[in-house]
Amino acid sequence: MLVKRKNLYQSCWHGAPGLLSPVNFLEEKGHQGLAVAVFGILFSSLCMLVLDNDPLPFIASSTQHNREYWKIMALLYYPAFYYPLIACATVRHRAGYLLGCLLSWCHCVVHIWQKADCPQSPKIYRYYSLLSYLPVIFCLMVLSLWYPALLVRSFTEWEVGAWGPKSLSLGLDEREDEGREFLGFPLVTSHPSACNPEARMIDWLTSDFGIAGFQVPLKLVLSVTMAVIAVYQVALLLLVAFIPNIQIIRAGMTKEITVLLVQFGLIPSENAGGIPGDMEKELATVKHYLWALEVCYVCSLVISCLLTFCMLMRSLVMHRMNLQSLYRGAVLDVFYHPHELRPSQQSLVCWMSFASFQTAFTCLGLLIQQIIFFICTVGFTFLVAIPLRSGTNMHLFKIVENMWQFWLTLVVAVILQHLVTHYYFLERDRLPKELTNRRALYILTYLLFPINVLVGVLAGVWRMVISALYNAIHFCQLDISLLNRSVELFDPGYRTYCHYLKIEVSQSHPVMKAFCFLLLQLPSPEGQTVLKPTDVEEGIQLMQTKKVSPKVSKSKQSRARWCLAYTLLNNPSLLPLRKTVLADPTANGTQNSPAKP
Amino acid sequence: MLVKRKNLYQSCWHGAPGLLSPVNFLEEKGHQGLAVAVFGILFSSLCMLVLDNDPLPFIASSTQHNREYWKIMALLYYPAFYYPLIACATVRHRAGYLLGCLLSWCHCVVHIWQKADCPQSPKIYRYYSLLSYLPVIFCLMVLSLWYPALLVRSFTEWEVGAWGPKSLSLGLDEREDEGREFLGFPLVTSHPSACNPEARMIDWLTSDFGIAGFQVPLKLVLSVTMAVIAVYQVALLLLVAFIPNIQIIRAGMTKEITVLLVQFGLIPSENAGGIPGDMEKELATVKHYLWALEVCYVCSLVISCLLTFCMLMRSLVMHRMNLQSLYRGAVLDVFYHPHELRPSQQSLVCWMSFASFQTAFTCLGLLIQQIIFFICTVGFTFLVAIPLRSGTNMHLFKIVENMWQFWLTLVVAVILQHLVTHYYFLERDRLPKELTNRRALYILTYLLFPINVLVGVLAGVWRMVISALYNAIHFCQLDISLLNRSVELFDPGYRTYCHYLKIEVSQSHPVMKAFCFLLLQLPSPEGQTVLKPTDVEEGIQLMQTKKVSPKVSKSKQSRARWCLAYTLLNNPSLLPLRKTVLADPTANGTQNSPAKP
Repeated sequence: MLVKRKNLYQSCWHGAPGLLSPVNFLEEKGHQGLAVAVFGILFSSLCMLVLDNDPLPFIASSTQHNREYWKIMALLYYPAFYYPLIACATVRHRAGYLLGCLLSWCHCVVHIWQKADCPQSPKIYRYYSLLSYLPVIFCLMVLSLWYPALLVRSFTEWEVGAWGPKSLSLGLDEREDEGREFLGFPLVTSHPSACNPEARMIDWLTSDFGIAGFQVPLKLVLSVTMAVIAVYQVALLLLVAFIPNIQIIRAGMTKEITVLLVQFGLIPSENAGGIPGDMEKELATVKHYLWALEVCYVCSLVISCLLTFCMLMRSLVMHRMNLQSLYRGAVLDVFYHPHELRPSQQSLVCWMSFASFQTAFTCLGLLIQQIIFFICTVGFTFLVAIPLRSGTNMHLFKIVENMWQFWLTLVVAVILQHLVTHYYFLERDRLPKELTNRRALYILTYLLFPINVLVGVLAGVWRMVISALYNAIHFCQLDISLLNRSVELFDPGYRTYCHYLKIEVSQSHPVMKAFCFLLLQLPSPEGQTVLKPTDVEEGIQLMQTKKVSPKVSKSKQSRARWCLAYTLLNNPSLLPLRKTVLADPTANGTQNSPAKP
Repeated sequence: MLVKRKNLYQSCWHGAPGLLSPVNFLEEKGHQGLAVAVFGILFSSLCMLVLDNDPLPFIASSTQHNREYWKIMALLYYPAFYYPLIACATVRHRAGYLLGCLLSWCHCVVHIWQKADCPQSPKIYRYYSLLSYLPVIFCLMVLSLWYPALLVRSFTEWEVGAWGPKSLSLGLDEREDEGREFLGFPLVTSHPSACNPEARMIDWLTSDFGIAGFQVPLKLVLSVTMAVIAVYQVALLLLVAFIPNIQIIRAGMTKEITVLLVQFGLIPSENAGGIPGDMEKELATVKHYLWALEVCYVCSLVISCLLTFCMLMRSLVMHRMNLQSLYRGAVLDVFYHPHELRPSQQSLVCWMSFASFQTAFTCLGLLIQQIIFFICTVGFTFLVAIPLRSGTNMHLFKIVENMWQFWLTLVVAVILQHLVTHYYFLERDRLPKELTNRRALYILTYLLFPINVLVGVLAGVWRMVISALYNAIHFCQLDISLLNRSVELFDPGYRTYCHYLKIEVSQSHPVMKAFCFLLLQLPSPEGQTVLKPTDVEEGIQLMQTKKVSPKVSKSKQSRARWCLAYTLLNNPSLLPLRKTVLADPTANGTQNSPAKP
């Protein structure tokens, strides 16, 4: 097995039997669920780590001083600890799957047993630890079911003898039509008789093209799933930090505290002196108010979670559209300023931290939304709903009532301006409307200046509210800049997203992937070693290592040129890749030289 | 004089001797200073009106109940009261100027005498009333000097016999070059011998073109000046509402209050028991803290005012660029989505309220900035500056010290990612850099996921801070949307600005104005009545009322066509205006029919 592994991964770590890559982020092939599950476990562990006093399981009780060190150690320990769970799948071998089965079952059983044995903990709320472990257990159960399924499938595939390329082209067939449509190729009948590599590639590209461009990249699926888990964890924390405490306060509310509240004027009372003896009614009011506060909190939390979830789903839709536009080369549809779609140091660092940023931003966004919506719902409840129901604390209504003349004046002024503009200042009979009665327009503008300033103050308040609300609601969306379009890249979230998109587009263009994959599948015409599926990793460089026979008929060559031109016209983002290869003196294969469109 | 006025303004109010327009907002001709001064008086009156208990000068003391009505009345009374001050200038006659002189002198003397007689008032701060009246007095003094200057100039112009067209073409000569350059016309020698209207127009457009497109419109000058006065009034109010009060508190601080503050832990004390006898040192500390608070307040106010002022100046620059782009027809340089530059009901209402909105937004923006900067400076002073100086209250430093391992880890992780990316994951020898060592990249991405989440939390905090700061600082700028580019028109400020721009561009294109002005100056070839300068108001319709002789030589006609094509090519925003005229069956003058480019 070791020898086999060494052969499989000889291109990495200079041929040494190196570590298995946990997940190929740029090539989503079948293991999306596994990767998402393991990252979910990792993130949930991180959440518990931040709040926990004992960060590492084998260090019993750390002192205040060295706890920081242990926590930092734990930040590196957990990824390493769960590493085997995900790496087992990337071997693409039965033994790996078997090991994965055993590992995931072990983890799962240990965790479930631990929590069943001791469901309560003294932290924040007695069931908090149990509830926050639920995502971990769920992810482990996904793993425990996924690995056996992989194992079973590997057996059935081995029996029909299609191990190897088949496992790579898994699920390619059903995506054919979508891929062909995306590339803009007409339906050309395939030529099964053609056996030289070029004709096969052309056939592949024109009729059997199989890798679709519409799949959401693994990195994005990962980030959105992490964000959903983050919503769960933050919402859980917010819930257990507030609700049990306010319930305790409500239960322990006494008449003495009620008297104090009445004296501060917070609770309306007919009993002006505040004698503790007959405060039954006021005590009920206090309890009712506390209950209302609890309801407000839960409502705002539900609204925040739903909104965050909607925004994450919108993020996915936006991303799909952006990716399509960029594959087609329409850079200005996505970015306001032109961007070069090449990997750079900055963009690679951003790509690495994209999923983490999405997760962290979702946590913060939920927190901000919860604060804002809680204030709003409390304001609505105590200034509108309760006064309307009980007839006390009518502060807001009194203010509105006192100023009704003022509001009426503003409304009348605005309506007047609209009416006069419609009927008097614009020519109504000519369709491209022109100004008329300018003198009266100027007089009205002058006379209404002071009233319009007051209307402007209201518009300014609305501007403030709407921009704050918009930013709070869209805080978790990295694909939207919270700043103005001229400075949008100063927003760290949006900058990360832009750079992430660059890497995704430049590294995983569907046509490029189809081309590389086809090259790997080709049997060598001159008895050279067949390239292995794992060499997909090195991407474009593959084209240079191939030496195919240059004797091709004239018609075939022109057909190849036409196909190339057509492909490049429909996918202008491939052009730089092509030029790179041309500029390199070692690349002189016939499939690279023809027709510059 | 009445007959003369009736003749001059026969096109308005169906020939009746109507009200004089206070200011021609779309045609900035000489009276900018006057208009700005009167609007300044109006806005300052509004500021005092909002805070005053006696809104109208002739109503001695109003009760609480009917005060609201009087305030609403005052909103309409003040514009009407100051109306003659500005309307006198638009008569363009010596009598008007004389009346203006007398009125402005009266107002000025009354105001100065009133304030000199009784400089103090019981409101907010004893000198507040005096200080808030300063802009009014300054504006009145401008008026008192401007009207005599106009009067003197009218006498000198009358003597040289250039009354009428000369007064309109005032200051046109010095803007010739700029205007010609703007229109993209080559330097063509003028033909003074040509005397038929078409040739004169062509000469005008090609060589003597006089109305420049680079002037900032009156409406914008007005709005920016109002905004500056608003900054003064709001800053003054903020200053007198806080500083005198805190000075009184500082002077009246006693040892008893100091003991209370020490017991609450707000003031550090070596005297743990808090005995009132020996609290000299603590009292000094409290006074020092209050003084620091005062300094913070003034500093933040100065910063806010300077920033607001800078933003207003930037607004002017941006506006000039936007106007240039729109005149050239480059709509997408200014707006993100294509806009039609035609007057509509919505745009006209926005145009009317633009200056008011700018003023109101500046007030609100300054208030928001003051709150934010005050919190920031207080935080900096009490968490950084005072602890560094005195060595007490080191809360922030203690937190940073306790968490230094954590910060170090994050910094190391970020630096590590940059270094590894630069030296290991990107091919360094090829210029369009390509990814390499993908397996190690994926492993590092996986391992650093938890640490990157924590980095992401910091980035999220930064995102929150930067978007809040950006929005607060740019709140007073209407030409910037505070929302994302896809929904930027939901921002009421930006929407107003966009509509305002539409009206400005569609109504005051320099070529159109030059054309109208030339038509007015033409002596009629067939003895028809000469159009009067006041008919400028009706703008484009002028072209239809002209009947010029259609006998023009072939070469002249082709030259006219070429010029028209050239003008339209350089100013595509004129095209709709042209089409309107063509679509109208009454328009069949020769200057409208040739060459569709």
